[in-house]
Amino acid sequence: MRRSAGRSGGSPDGGCPAAAALEVLGRKWTGEILWALLDGPRRFTEILGRVPGITDRVLSARLKELQRTGIVTRRQYEEIPPRVEYALTARGRDLAPVLEAMTRWSRRWAARPAT
Amino acid sequence: MRRSAGRSGGSPDGGCPAAAALEVLGRKWTGEILWALLDGPRRFTEILGRVPGITDRVLSARLKELQRTGIVTRRQYEEIPPRVEYALTARGRDLAPVLEAMTRWSRRWAARPAT
Repeated sequence: MRRSAGRSGGSPDGGCPAAAALEVLGRKWTGEILWALLDGPRRFTEILGRVPGITDRVLSARLKELQRTGIVTRRQYEEIPPRVEYALTARGRDLAPVLEAMTRWSRRWAARPAT
Repeated sequence: MRRSAGRSGGSPDGGCPAAAALEVLGRKWTGEILWALLDGPRRFTEILGRVPGITDRVLSARLKELQRTGIVTRRQYEEIPPRVEYALTARGRDLAPVLEAMTRWSRRWAARPAT
């Protein structure tokens, strides 16, 4: 990962092969939001309920970012009242193995003292 | 991941099972530093050369953090001049599958347009 592929934007330029995924998952709340969507499409309030501590405003901003980066889609169903759902794209679903590898590591090590 | 397991510290409390790994890897430069150590112990200047863009000061701070969290060890060899090497612990080496999953995702998706 090169300096230009930092948390705050910029695109990976090949300095480290894991840069693109780190850039997505390194942002606060992103992992939690993807986790909440892994088992299927969800409405805004459902995601909110599955990500304890996040605010409406931050969730809304993160969902917009994830749409821009092609990881989440927003679908509006023309019902009365209208229903809006967020879902992972193929690109987003494909982050599941990363979250699963992180989960395995966390289960194995989080409870053990660091030294 | 719960609010208390945020980027800035605190310990994961089970809100999301990937929290602990995200807390380690979500910090800027950490992924790059671990990547630089995956194939064996390295001296400070070697790591510096493998993480383009990082400064001495930031690398030094990150290595101290990674020692505190039990992911990196610092070993000093009593030679003349003294030699200091940093290496991954078992806990640190076990992050390799996470970095590899990130690499697979990045290779597959980084080059494709988001929409």
